[in-house]
Amino acid sequence: MSLSHSTGYNNDTICAVATSPGMGAIAVIRISGPDSLPLLFNLFQPKNKNLSTDNIQSHHVYFGEIRNEEKVLDEVLATYFKAPHSYTGEDAVEISCHGSEYVQEQLIQLIIEKGGRMAQAGEFTLRAFLNGKMDLSQAEAVADLIASESGMAHRMAMSQMRGGFSDKIAELRQQLVQFASLMELELDFGEEDVEFADRSRFMELISTLIKELTLLKDSFKMGNVLKKGIPVAIIGKPNAGKSTLLNALLNEEKAIVSDIPGTTRDALEDTIVLEGYSFRFIDTAGLRESEDIVENLGIERTYDKIRQASLILYVCDISDVNRENTNEVLEEFKTYIQDENKHFIMVANKTDKLEEIPMNLKEMLELETVFVSAKRRENIHLLAETLVNHVKEQNFSESILVNNSRHYEALAKALESILQVETGFEQQVPTDLIAIDIRQALYHLGSITGEVTSDEILGNIFSKFCIGK
Amino acid sequence: MSLSHSTGYNNDTICAVATSPGMGAIAVIRISGPDSLPLLFNLFQPKNKNLSTDNIQSHHVYFGEIRNEEKVLDEVLATYFKAPHSYTGEDAVEISCHGSEYVQEQLIQLIIEKGGRMAQAGEFTLRAFLNGKMDLSQAEAVADLIASESGMAHRMAMSQMRGGFSDKIAELRQQLVQFASLMELELDFGEEDVEFADRSRFMELISTLIKELTLLKDSFKMGNVLKKGIPVAIIGKPNAGKSTLLNALLNEEKAIVSDIPGTTRDALEDTIVLEGYSFRFIDTAGLRESEDIVENLGIERTYDKIRQASLILYVCDISDVNRENTNEVLEEFKTYIQDENKHFIMVANKTDKLEEIPMNLKEMLELETVFVSAKRRENIHLLAETLVNHVKEQNFSESILVNNSRHYEALAKALESILQVETGFEQQVPTDLIAIDIRQALYHLGSITGEVTSDEILGNIFSKFCIGK
Repeated sequence: MSLSHSTGYNNDTICAVATSPGMGAIAVIRISGPDSLPLLFNLFQPKNKNLSTDNIQSHHVYFGEIRNEEKVLDEVLATYFKAPHSYTGEDAVEISCHGSEYVQEQLIQLIIEKGGRMAQAGEFTLRAFLNGKMDLSQAEAVADLIASESGMAHRMAMSQMRGGFSDKIAELRQQLVQFASLMELELDFGEEDVEFADRSRFMELISTLIKELTLLKDSFKMGNVLKKGIPVAIIGKPNAGKSTLLNALLNEEKAIVSDIPGTTRDALEDTIVLEGYSFRFIDTAGLRESEDIVENLGIERTYDKIRQASLILYVCDISDVNRENTNEVLEEFKTYIQDENKHFIMVANKTDKLEEIPMNLKEMLELETVFVSAKRRENIHLLAETLVNHVKEQNFSESILVNNSRHYEALAKALESILQVETGFEQQVPTDLIAIDIRQALYHLGSITGEVTSDEILGNIFSKFCIGK
Repeated sequence: MSLSHSTGYNNDTICAVATSPGMGAIAVIRISGPDSLPLLFNLFQPKNKNLSTDNIQSHHVYFGEIRNEEKVLDEVLATYFKAPHSYTGEDAVEISCHGSEYVQEQLIQLIIEKGGRMAQAGEFTLRAFLNGKMDLSQAEAVADLIASESGMAHRMAMSQMRGGFSDKIAELRQQLVQFASLMELELDFGEEDVEFADRSRFMELISTLIKELTLLKDSFKMGNVLKKGIPVAIIGKPNAGKSTLLNALLNEEKAIVSDIPGTTRDALEDTIVLEGYSFRFIDTAGLRESEDIVENLGIERTYDKIRQASLILYVCDISDVNRENTNEVLEEFKTYIQDENKHFIMVANKTDKLEEIPMNLKEMLELETVFVSAKRRENIHLLAETLVNHVKEQNFSESILVNNSRHYEALAKALESILQVETGFEQQVPTDLIAIDIRQALYHLGSITGEVTSDEILGNIFSKFCIGK
């Protein structure tokens, strides 16, 4: 994202495919900027020959052909959105064409030939923000909404897009602004040593702020995990059935499964959603000594994955289990088993090999154990329940969950400044020094909604968007 | 595709995601059927509170929220297409929502809860056909247009969608119909032995038909190859650099490339478009004896691939090339080198290893040879040119190219019947027997455009469509 977009606000006309890349029944191409309408008429031949830039209606769908000179590229529907009644707040056009990748490519190329420019990632939404159609945290929520894959992630993004989080931040900031202006007034009368601001009410406000900001900041860990999916590492010895288990969980064949040990070389990642919660499964290379270079790289990665996971499924072949190797597991993974931030679950697999599970085996396993047959897809639901219960136990409120690391950082910095304000008052630091910390806190809170912002921040945020949004 | 769709024409309301699957800035959900409008108002809360099923305008885009009870699922644009002015010819609705997979899923689920039914593959287009919005070959062209990946495939599909092929078939059929009706008239007067139909004009028509049908039928081979991509097998000994060459050609890293022989286990397929022609590249497991089960499966497949290919690139390491192993290649692939339907090209790779290419080496290679360095991406364009020239040499006219195997079969059967008519006349077979063959020819020609059709044919055609079209 070049700075020109965020500062000078490039007043040109941009275009991009707005629908998911690839082949579909239809695709939508989006054009936005002052030349959208003349550009449309430069390549679109409406079926109604009398239609022109003068009599076209906003928000009306017109049928016609896209023509490149005399060659018909496609038959399409075109809609004009007159500024400011568009997503971006500018004049905009949407063309709904046949969803061939070739047609999409050619149409974009044609628009560019006729004077459009390929939009950068997030540029439509950046323009919406710059034109005051939404604040910054709402703009960010658009990206989150699009990326949401679970009910939980969707709920968080939707609430943020509709301003829930912005309102909360604006409210906190407003309270602080009022007080700060009184403080600034005191500074103007500095030598007269007056106090406009009621110190005890201010201390109350400060402690409310500290409480609220701490809550928001602390909600990040959960919010982030819920958004991205709870990381679950699947580990175990070769041929314990890890890939088969993952397949059973995904209910589809995403991993290559064979009887040859060492088949799984890459750490395959996949996500499933159980009861609205998203779990990010990590299938890992079997843990064994190997001379195979490619495979050893995989094993190194396995330990990395375990460190990142908040749930660890240790898969073993039930017919191999005895006290000795169970102790080995306990010893090898002691760090993780004792880690309060991780949850270690034994998955005793291949129950199909046994007539029934011996009682002493059940007792022997000191760890939480689920008995399954991945191959026959038996008791997989019990394992799924165990995973969901683990999240439910963490019992988070239905309140606002921060899930954006930029917001988290801003909240942390705002909190830090407010804590310094508190200390300042307690230590009777001069008002002008305290005022600096208050301004800092205001700055950081303002950066969340975009009331104060910089090109760098905008560049960072919107470059993470997909093209076409 | 159940028969109910094609015969009774299920009069219910169907829905599907019409855009490419996956995440995008936006996605479009399509609803079609008599209940489209009430269904929309059952889940859509327009921003304009006064909007209702009574005053909604066709082809107008409305902003609002999708609500599931009190929960807001998304903010969307909704458009109503009043019958018959829609793609299907029925009442239809398009909802443009945020392109999150979760939102798409939930929205479809909600529509189904409110009385919609998930559309089957191609069901929207089937309805368009049944409602007379297009003939059968045009409907088929819609699917081809969507799947088109090259200028050539696009041109063929577009021409067919706009009726070029249908018109040709209709014209041939019309001529035959006129004559057939005269013949039937003769049969009515059978015992009086009159001849309404001018035999010599009829023989003329028959020979025109034979000529035209033969041309169309014969165009299939080229049409089909141009549509699907000209198959190019990349073969050669392990470590000759086949994957690297493919990557150089694709200009991206789609295959795993390593220095360990046998890295490529799967036959990776990928397509590139050069000057509007699509080439389907087939990277194959290295040809060597291997004890690795997985790899041996790959080698078996290699020979299969070579048999399918119309171009074969034999890649060799230039520093390994000598007269002896060149003769070996000539011997091993003799069948393919001599096959007129195949084109065998040597790719002398790794030119970066040599200071310059020795003249005697150039002379020694009896086969068409291109010298490249796949690693350094040198002279890859020469190889690309060689490929394109190979297609251009096949010099097909700009006329109609049949590229649909159903049409090919129908044409072949129609031709067969017409040839029997010709023989019949020559052998003075009774008119009533000849009439049977003419009816057969009419049937087969009619089946192309759908004038005569069966549930089975419709089922076959539309089940190959994507959902949402």
